[in-house]
Amino acid sequence: MINDPQKALADIRMRVQSDLTEFLAAQTRYLGEIGSELIPAAEAMSGFLLDSGKRLRPLFAYAGYLASGGSESDAVIKAVASLELLQACALIHDDLMDASDTRRGKPSMHRHFESIHRTEELSGSAQHYGESAAILLGDLALVWSDQMFHSAALEPSALLRALSVHDEMRVELMAGQFLDIHEQALATQSVARSLKIARFKSGKYTVERPLHFGLALATDDAHHRQTMADIFSDFGLPLGEAFQLRDDLLGVFGDPAVTGKPAGDDLREGKRTVLMAMTHDRANEHQEAVIATHFGDADLDLAGVEAIRTIISDTGAQTHVEELIEKLTMTALEALNREEISPSAHALLTELANISIRRSI
Amino acid sequence: MINDPQKALADIRMRVQSDLTEFLAAQTRYLGEIGSELIPAAEAMSGFLLDSGKRLRPLFAYAGYLASGGSESDAVIKAVASLELLQACALIHDDLMDASDTRRGKPSMHRHFESIHRTEELSGSAQHYGESAAILLGDLALVWSDQMFHSAALEPSALLRALSVHDEMRVELMAGQFLDIHEQALATQSVARSLKIARFKSGKYTVERPLHFGLALATDDAHHRQTMADIFSDFGLPLGEAFQLRDDLLGVFGDPAVTGKPAGDDLREGKRTVLMAMTHDRANEHQEAVIATHFGDADLDLAGVEAIRTIISDTGAQTHVEELIEKLTMTALEALNREEISPSAHALLTELANISIRRSI
Repeated sequence: MINDPQKALADIRMRVQSDLTEFLAAQTRYLGEIGSELIPAAEAMSGFLLDSGKRLRPLFAYAGYLASGGSESDAVIKAVASLELLQACALIHDDLMDASDTRRGKPSMHRHFESIHRTEELSGSAQHYGESAAILLGDLALVWSDQMFHSAALEPSALLRALSVHDEMRVELMAGQFLDIHEQALATQSVARSLKIARFKSGKYTVERPLHFGLALATDDAHHRQTMADIFSDFGLPLGEAFQLRDDLLGVFGDPAVTGKPAGDDLREGKRTVLMAMTHDRANEHQEAVIATHFGDADLDLAGVEAIRTIISDTGAQTHVEELIEKLTMTALEALNREEISPSAHALLTELANISIRRSI
Repeated sequence: MINDPQKALADIRMRVQSDLTEFLAAQTRYLGEIGSELIPAAEAMSGFLLDSGKRLRPLFAYAGYLASGGSESDAVIKAVASLELLQACALIHDDLMDASDTRRGKPSMHRHFESIHRTEELSGSAQHYGESAAILLGDLALVWSDQMFHSAALEPSALLRALSVHDEMRVELMAGQFLDIHEQALATQSVARSLKIARFKSGKYTVERPLHFGLALATDDAHHRQTMADIFSDFGLPLGEAFQLRDDLLGVFGDPAVTGKPAGDDLREGKRTVLMAMTHDRANEHQEAVIATHFGDADLDLAGVEAIRTIISDTGAQTHVEELIEKLTMTALEALNREEISPSAHALLTELANISIRRSI
C-alpha cells in the first residue's frame, strides 16, 4: 500500500539511479578492457545519464507494473531502468539531427566529442568526429538498453512477454522521429500532423508504452492484461500528448535553468510543434511576416525570441495549448476511475501525471 | 548430411531472402498505417536489404547452428536472417560517418534521402534531411533486427539463451566502430591498432559471434556449448580477420562492379586499414610523400589512385596482406579438424570460409 506517492516515486527513482550507475560502471570496465580509447565514450555516457533526468519512463513502467498487481522486485527495477538508455539514444541522435548545442545544461554529445577532438588536438575535422561519435554512442545506448533489460534477472516468462511490447515501443519511437524530420521539411505546418507526431514520438513512447511494458512484466493473465492495457491506453495516450504539449511550451517559454537549453531554443531551431502550428493558424498577415523573419534563424537573439513569444501569446495559441493540456490531463485522470485501479495505484499514477505536465516554465 | 555445401548455402540464402522479404513487407504495411510519409522509409530499407548482400552473417549463424547439432528449423532461419538488419544499421551509419556516396552500386542511404528531398522540392537543407533520415533508418534497422529475432517463433529456452550473445555481439560491434573513428582521428597509424579494430569491428562480428549465436540457438548442454564455442572462436577469429583484410584489399584494388563502390574509394576516404598501416611501415621517404599528397583526398582521380596502388604494391604491403590472409585462413581451417565437427559441418564451414576470403578483386 502506497501512502505517500511522492516518497514512493523518489524511492523508485533512487533505485533506478543506483542500477544505472552500477550497469554503466560494469560497462565502462568492459569497454576499458577492449581499449583505453573507449573510456571517454563510456564516461560521456555516464555523464549524460547519471547527472540528471526525470526518469519518467522507468517511473511509468514501474507504476504500470505495480498497478497491474506486480510485487516489489529489484529485477523489474533494473528492467525499467533500461528505458533511460533507450531515451539516451533518442536524445543523443535527436540533438545531432536538431544541431542542438546543449542538453540538460551541458554540451550535447556531438559537441562534447567535438571539444575532445580540439582539446586532444586530434587530426581531421572536429565537427565530423563529434557527429560520428554521437551516432555511435546513440547506437551503443540502444544496444546497452537491450542488454540491461535482458540481464535484469527477470522471470524468463516475464522477459519473454515484455520483449514484443518493448520492440513495438521502439519502432513507434523511430517512426515518430521520422515523421518529425519529414514534417520539418514540408513547406507548410498542420495542427493535425503535428498532433500525430506528438502522439508517436512522445505520447506513446513516454507514457502508454512504458505502462504496457510494466504490465507485461507483471502478469500472464491474458484477460487481465487486455483490461489493464486498455485502461493504460486511455490514461497514457492523452497524458502523453499533454506531456509533449508541455514540452512545446517549455521549448519556447521555458526557463533555461529548468530546461537545460537556451531560452527559446525551439524557435531558433524552427521546430514545428503543435504550438507553432496553432500559432500559424491564428496569425494575421503581419504576425505571419514576423514569424517568417525570425523562426528558424539559428542566430536569433533574445529580442527576436521575445517577438515570436508575443505573437504566440497574442494569437491565443499559448492559452489554447494550456487549455488542451488541462483537458487531456482531465481525460487521462478520469480513465483511472476504474475498479481495477487500486487506491495506491491511483495515487501513484495521479502523482506521475502531475509531474509530467506541471513541469515549471 | 550435407553432400553439396554450395547448394546447401544457396538454399539457406534463399530462405533468408524470403524471410527478409516477408518481414519487410509486413513492416511496410505497419508503417504505412501510421502515416503514408513513412512509406519511402520502408521502401528504402527494402531496396537496401533485398537487392543484394552476401548474407554472410546469417550463413555463419545457421552453419554454427547446424554444426552444433541443431536440426533444420524455419524459426532459426528467421532468427539468423535478422542479422542482416543489424548489418543494415551498421552500413547505413557507417556510410554516413564515412561520407560515402554509394553502397552496393546504389546511392547510400543519406544520399538517397538527399535526392528525395530535392525531387520533392522539400524545404530546408537536402543534405541535412538525408543525414537525419539515415540516422533514423539505421536506428530503425537495429530495432527491426531485434523484432525479427524475437518474433521468429523460436523455442523460448533457445531465444533466452541467444539474447546475451546477441547483445554482446552488438556491443563489440559498436566498440569496434568507435575504435575505428578514433583511429581515423589520430596523427599516426599503427598495424597493431588497425588489427585490433579489424578484430572487433569485423572479425568477431562477422564470423565468431554469428557462429556463437547459432550455437546458443542449438543446444542448452553447457559442456557441449563451451567446447563448440572454443572451436568456433579458434575458427572464427582468424577467419574474421582474414575477411577484413580481404575487404581492405578490395577497398583499394577492387573492381567497382564487384564492390559496388567507386575504384579506390578507401583511398579517397583516407581509411586507415591494416593494409595502409603496413604500407606506411614499409614506405620510403618519397613514397610517404606521395601518400601524404593523395591519401584522403576526396577529389582523388584515377591517376592518384593508381599512384598509391603502385606504392602499396611496391612496398610489398599488398603481398604481405595476401600472405596474412592465407595464413589466417589456414589457421581457421585447421581449427575445424576436431571430432566435434561432423563431415557435413566441416564441408559447410570450409565453403563459407572460401566465400569469405576468396571474394574476387
